Amino acid sequence: MTSLFGADLAVINVGLSEFAAPIAAAEAQVLDIAWTPPAGDETVARALARLVNRPDVEAANATAFARYLAAQPTLVGVAAAADAIAGLPDRTILHAGPPIEWRNMCAPVQGAIIGACIFEGWADGPEAAQKILDAGEISFSPCHHYGAVGPMAGIISPSMPVWIIEDAAHGTRTYSNLNEGLGKVLRFGANTPDVIDRLRWMQQVLGPALTATLKTLGPLELKPLMAQALHMGDEVHNRNAAASALLLKRLIPAALDANLDAAVLSDVVKFINSNDHFFLNLSMPACKAMMDAAHGVAGPSLVTAMARNGVEFGIRVSGLGPRWFTVPAPIVHGLFFPGYSAEDANPDLGDSTITETAGIGAFAMAASPAIVQFVGGSASDAIANTRQMSHITIGRNNSFTLPQLDFGATPAGIDIRKVIDTGIEPVINTGIAHCEAGIGQIGAGITHAPMACFAQAVLALAESLDE
Amino acid sequence: MTSLFGADLAVINVGLSEFAAPIAAAEAQVLDIAWTPPAGDETVARALARLVNRPDVEAANATAFARYLAAQPTLVGVAAAADAIAGLPDRTILHAGPPIEWRNMCAPVQGAIIGACIFEGWADGPEAAQKILDAGEISFSPCHHYGAVGPMAGIISPSMPVWIIEDAAHGTRTYSNLNEGLGKVLRFGANTPDVIDRLRWMQQVLGPALTATLKTLGPLELKPLMAQALHMGDEVHNRNAAASALLLKRLIPAALDANLDAAVLSDVVKFINSNDHFFLNLSMPACKAMMDAAHGVAGPSLVTAMARNGVEFGIRVSGLGPRWFTVPAPIVHGLFFPGYSAEDANPDLGDSTITETAGIGAFAMAASPAIVQFVGGSASDAIANTRQMSHITIGRNNSFTLPQLDFGATPAGIDIRKVIDTGIEPVINTGIAHCEAGIGQIGAGITHAPMACFAQAVLALAESLDE
Repeated sequence: MTSLFGADLAVINVGLSEFAAPIAAAEAQVLDIAWTPPAGDETVARALARLVNRPDVEAANATAFARYLAAQPTLVGVAAAADAIAGLPDRTILHAGPPIEWRNMCAPVQGAIIGACIFEGWADGPEAAQKILDAGEISFSPCHHYGAVGPMAGIISPSMPVWIIEDAAHGTRTYSNLNEGLGKVLRFGANTPDVIDRLRWMQQVLGPALTATLKTLGPLELKPLMAQALHMGDEVHNRNAAASALLLKRLIPAALDANLDAAVLSDVVKFINSNDHFFLNLSMPACKAMMDAAHGVAGPSLVTAMARNGVEFGIRVSGLGPRWFTVPAPIVHGLFFPGYSAEDANPDLGDSTITETAGIGAFAMAASPAIVQFVGGSASDAIANTRQMSHITIGRNNSFTLPQLDFGATPAGIDIRKVIDTGIEPVINTGIAHCEAGIGQIGAGITHAPMACFAQAVLALAESLDE
Repeated sequence: MTSLFGADLAVINVGLSEFAAPIAAAEAQVLDIAWTPPAGDETVARALARLVNRPDVEAANATAFARYLAAQPTLVGVAAAADAIAGLPDRTILHAGPPIEWRNMCAPVQGAIIGACIFEGWADGPEAAQKILDAGEISFSPCHHYGAVGPMAGIISPSMPVWIIEDAAHGTRTYSNLNEGLGKVLRFGANTPDVIDRLRWMQQVLGPALTATLKTLGPLELKPLMAQALHMGDEVHNRNAAASALLLKRLIPAALDANLDAAVLSDVVKFINSNDHFFLNLSMPACKAMMDAAHGVAGPSLVTAMARNGVEFGIRVSGLGPRWFTVPAPIVHGLFFPGYSAEDANPDLGDSTITETAGIGAFAMAASPAIVQFVGGSASDAIANTRQMSHITIGRNNSFTLPQLDFGATPAGIDIRKVIDTGIEPVINTGIAHCEAGIGQIGAGITHAPMACFAQAVLALAESLDE
């Protein structure tokens, strides 16, 4: 004690920095540590305390994470949504993100739905479509409720061709629509005749050509292709240049052997060839298949979906069934294309955050230094993002190694407890949609899944385990 | 002085570490700096001293380097070597590396030349070919003497189709043969009927199909494609996976529009699609075009070629005309395929070191962490190799940025003076050929251009400038 009081004062101040200031003013040594209590809210903190150091939660997480790792998403075909997706009701349109009613949807999603009604022949133009939609004649459901995912508005209507992915390890299936390319497209809310014409071509030409090609090719495992793309600078969410090229290389020999009409072959190959994002709509249902494998295990704190409908951001947790935990979707402050700013941006939109949920996208950003030219930051930021995510994840996915980390595996399996405990929100790479229907992408950037979703989920999980 | 002698002894020892040992033994502080005089040879050191701080050499280097940077290698066509390469004499075969006589060539090169004689119809089998070759009926020249480059044996005979690259900035042309794929191939000395049949197919089907495709496509600038590949994990020497995919994506729309026979289209697309090294034979003449632009300027100390014929390693220097500075080619100690070791390896072989000469390949290895799985080392070694090369180069090439260095440009333009001054040999990524003809590639690794070539060149340059 004598030596303590005899020595110079050296203080470590944890938390409120106001306490450090007078010590520093008195010229004593003080190290100020930024710290806030986990959760920042007493109720959530108490719920979190009930969820940590619980062997049942750890065991459930281990089971769910092992199922995620074991999933083997395999492309098996292309068919009309109505034929492919079991139980899809008539006159139903699937959309991105958590559930939302027609009148509450954002403009790009409403625009895309109007386009889908015209495409399906339920209305002969935007006004007629608006009428049947306002009259409640069309039903809606999140894509996620039918094993599907879609980028941006994420609209899937019954006649649209969808990719069919089968998890060879667990036998379940997931789906996504086909990527339309950039520019004026349905997923950003455009519904003009050229957009509808392209959708009809995709339905009548591209879809059947892919069906025939995939019959010739046979089942195509997607994880090895995604792993290869991660070694070629993609993070397989907003950068799919390598993955799309690799997919084309897989499809081409089969397409050449599939006895397609020469003009069809030419059009289809050129369409795929011209779109560096074509693989996104395969990356997403592959990730959905991995997370569906982990969903529905009793008790775990593993996040199995993050998705946005342009109004709300929602997450689902393996141990909490079909429930969504939602908060208002944030505006992304990213890099905007010339002439646009955050004022033009729609709140965060699309199911594509299923990629981050599965440990790729921004979680694997270390593999993709070139993406910082698109979403902002430096190559070292990209590595830092990946490293930081290891603090909120259950493990690593050895199927997805990152050359820049000397082939260390990507962090995967977001644990709602760790998010609340560390205060680290899951990082997301995302495109930014214009808030008006049909203008399209106006930028891209890095955003985060809002903490409040995870707080709700921690409360719900604690409650469900206390029952 | 008093304070100096009063203070504790603190010594920095430069060079011979024997001087440091007794000081350390006397418990005085000593920092031992590893250093040897530049060149290691008094004659070379004196020659180097005459070459440094010379405005004429600096100005000549600036001119040569600017011409290298300005080069715009553009793929303009495919034609038979005899038609494409101006002045190529009859019954002449081009080979990799510096000049060498038939009887001194290594087995893989001799095997490839025997194959070329059969392919050309100059002999009806290996024995007949051997006879005309021993009788001196066939002439030889380095590819480099005709603006050409070829990987491994680098054999180009008159009927073989070659890529034609035009430097749009300076109007000169360079050439390379077409890549045959992996396995049993001419460039590793194989000359069995299947190898000759493939060469005939390349001559009769692939070549004309590419000629037609390129006519439809029009001129294709290669530097942007290579730059894109550097952002996708290639170093565009031993890893060309992205570049080959990007090339396929450029060629396909034109191939589909070129009115090719359906079976030809199918065979040609599948052939290109199946070979991740297909782009190597474009990367090389593109680099040759850049270095030829810098060659022949009076006075500079810039290296414009590094090449190996499997017996000798040689370099050429811009200011020293057609002369080669050669030493015995080293054995590469790399990663060997199962069942092979350095004992099976042919000494270093091929013109592909033109890529390192132009600042890509191992010089751009930071861009290609995934290549360490092929050539050995870690991702940080790859970055260190690139950084180290900046000590022996004249500048950086802003056409080739490296994401892992936060888009810093690749070091380029090897200066023979800096190599001698620093003792740093240029780093090279390379495939390793079996020392017997026709077995093929048995490994890959990292090697270095031998210092002694650069010492010879420094002596010659000093002599030429003193005249």
